Amino acid sequence: MSGNLIFDTRNMEGFVEGSELDSLSAEVKRAHELLYGRRGPGKEFLGWMDLPEKYNEAFISEVRDAASSLSGNSDVIVVIGIGGSYLGAKALIDAVCPIEAREKIIFSGYNLSGEELEDLLAGLKEKDFSINVISKSGTTTESAIAFRALESLLIEKYGKDEAKKRIACTTDRNKGALREISERKGYRSFEIPDDVGGRFSVLTPVGLFPAAAAGVDIGELLSGAMAQKESMSVSDPEKNPASLYAAIRNILWRKGKVIEVFSVFDGFLRNTAEWWKQLFGESEGKNGRGIFPAGCVFSTDLHSMGQLIQDGNRNIFETFLMVEKSASELEVPFSEDDTDGLNYISGMRVDDVNRKAYEATARAHFSGGVPNSTIRIEERSAFCMGQLFYFFETAVALSAYISGVNPFNQPGVETYKKEMFRLLGKDGIN
Amino acid sequence: MSGNLIFDTRNMEGFVEGSELDSLSAEVKRAHELLYGRRGPGKEFLGWMDLPEKYNEAFISEVRDAASSLSGNSDVIVVIGIGGSYLGAKALIDAVCPIEAREKIIFSGYNLSGEELEDLLAGLKEKDFSINVISKSGTTTESAIAFRALESLLIEKYGKDEAKKRIACTTDRNKGALREISERKGYRSFEIPDDVGGRFSVLTPVGLFPAAAAGVDIGELLSGAMAQKESMSVSDPEKNPASLYAAIRNILWRKGKVIEVFSVFDGFLRNTAEWWKQLFGESEGKNGRGIFPAGCVFSTDLHSMGQLIQDGNRNIFETFLMVEKSASELEVPFSEDDTDGLNYISGMRVDDVNRKAYEATARAHFSGGVPNSTIRIEERSAFCMGQLFYFFETAVALSAYISGVNPFNQPGVETYKKEMFRLLGKDGIN
Repeated sequence: MSGNLIFDTRNMEGFVEGSELDSLSAEVKRAHELLYGRRGPGKEFLGWMDLPEKYNEAFISEVRDAASSLSGNSDVIVVIGIGGSYLGAKALIDAVCPIEAREKIIFSGYNLSGEELEDLLAGLKEKDFSINVISKSGTTTESAIAFRALESLLIEKYGKDEAKKRIACTTDRNKGALREISERKGYRSFEIPDDVGGRFSVLTPVGLFPAAAAGVDIGELLSGAMAQKESMSVSDPEKNPASLYAAIRNILWRKGKVIEVFSVFDGFLRNTAEWWKQLFGESEGKNGRGIFPAGCVFSTDLHSMGQLIQDGNRNIFETFLMVEKSASELEVPFSEDDTDGLNYISGMRVDDVNRKAYEATARAHFSGGVPNSTIRIEERSAFCMGQLFYFFETAVALSAYISGVNPFNQPGVETYKKEMFRLLGKDGIN
Repeated sequence: MSGNLIFDTRNMEGFVEGSELDSLSAEVKRAHELLYGRRGPGKEFLGWMDLPEKYNEAFISEVRDAASSLSGNSDVIVVIGIGGSYLGAKALIDAVCPIEAREKIIFSGYNLSGEELEDLLAGLKEKDFSINVISKSGTTTESAIAFRALESLLIEKYGKDEAKKRIACTTDRNKGALREISERKGYRSFEIPDDVGGRFSVLTPVGLFPAAAAGVDIGELLSGAMAQKESMSVSDPEKNPASLYAAIRNILWRKGKVIEVFSVFDGFLRNTAEWWKQLFGESEGKNGRGIFPAGCVFSTDLHSMGQLIQDGNRNIFETFLMVEKSASELEVPFSEDDTDGLNYISGMRVDDVNRKAYEATARAHFSGGVPNSTIRIEERSAFCMGQLFYFFETAVALSAYISGVNPFNQPGVETYKKEMFRLLGKDGIN
């Protein structure tokens, strides 16, 4: 258990007025009713709303046990998936796991780089490994190619019987190629619910299984999501941070803030930004609309994107994600000679310096004309990440309804695939 | 040696007209004259233009030998630097080195995460390591903290005498804390020229030393830059790809394309995109102006940012970076049962499928209203990366001059630092 997620809007002052929030309140209320009344566009994909309470203890234990058994006899677990089938797990594992666990889970099948796949195959020859392949259809080109290559290597290495103990499939309940493969070959399988889209699937076995394999407490993850859900049942932005975030985004968008920079101060949260980019970009970026989502990892990117954010085109707003507690006690070392002039902070925790860098950045960007808000979570724990995932999923649904688009489809994703199948000469495509 | 860098603008048709290029030609010519006449704003920072011919064979050998000697007795070389003091080397090493070399070079000092630094220090205890610390002043908070911690560990492990053989400093010729430290302690040092800004420094020892330590042929890198330089001495966009790229960016910007997405199809080029983001963001993002630079790694990000690029707000244009030759022969495996339906491409090289994905994406985004161009380099080699770096450096200078800003300053970067020093209680700041 841990504290509440806080949405801090102090640096919106002068950019978003109370009167503007009041004017938008009817739209926010309508969006909230569409979502919670389950009667908005895309209402057949609202299964994510019920995930925090969907899985009982027995099921959680089943996932945990299966993941442990895969993990126990492997140096490395290769998780095969693309888009929504890997970003959530990657975000979660990077955010909460120690370095050994992060290095144990290798993601693959998320692109078409022959050389990367070749490097992976070569590296696995000398290691014990297992596979968790994640695909609703089983025919997605990227992940299907990787699974062909990795399954072959696994069988070559261990034989078909042992391979059965080393492969777990996460796929559709009834249909599709991967379901068929798992049944025919006797691979362990977990279900992706029909009513949950890829980018909303982190709290299904899509995210739960790899997370459990990395040692994440998935029960706590779901508890965090449940706690967040309970805090967001009213529509009023004064009481519901997801309503407030959705409202502010739309107000800023209508004023020409067409880019949202999601900024973190820790490399462990880099992939949380990537997950957030998919969630918001794919949910809102349609019909010629949508705020462009970008990610920054500071203070690194203050030395690259910082200049433009501070002083460039004023079409940006910023959302920081900060973690209140740090686990590291590392201090700035003292130096006898102090040639670099850093002794004024020696003995201070490096993470506290980082904290000051955040406070300074939020103020500096605000004063430079970039309205910003901060989402604060208590610590990098499964519980807090559950809160965060559920917060953003609710917020994006409300935000998209306010801006007038269906948050749950992604018609544009098919365009390049169709063209690619044509170029590759796939039957029936021309 | 290798082929020319190609700038392919076929997917600009209908978005940028010949007549628009003609109208801009006087501005392009003026920008070219400001740059090559060395009389534009920031003219005191044009040293990067002369880097391809600045260093003679003897100097290149000196860097190579010093880097080899560090590399030879180390499992890992920690390169400490932030912003322009690490992005170029990282881009280059990721783009051209095999996996073992990439894993040997670890970058640090680019952020303020106590936990990341703690993990690094713990991991180094059992390894032989050396340090290349890169900082013009030696007082940059991020890299100075990391250097204090890592230098201490190195001395504790090997003693002061051996540490001298394991530390190389890249810094100002005469002044600054790191220059003073290197002189007093007897550390090997290399110079950052006064007239080269951080984001233009990849062809100085800032990039050359880490690259040489990773086994990159830095002579070839400089030859590639030289070849590119020679091909860009005229201003005419029909003959100079940097002029054409600069002109097109400005035409699109004036038409409301406020975001440029730099897209690659290979994770090895992810950090080339990061380097590009700093180069363009920091050079152009000022005085309330500047195209917002974003990076995508496809096909991964087609499953996250793809929807919005295809179908969202039409304020985007896109620049692809493609490598013509691939080193990988890995083929899509054949499957007896073909449950996933992939046999129609079995036996095809995975990198050729990737190529088709690129062609499909460029066409799909064009048809969706996203004008795009492609920069093609022959292969992932030091020579071609030299071409690419020099191409972009020239292009951004021209582009910024056309848009009316000084490409070579970064006044906004200081704002958060000042505020941070104040919050940290540094003397003389209030």
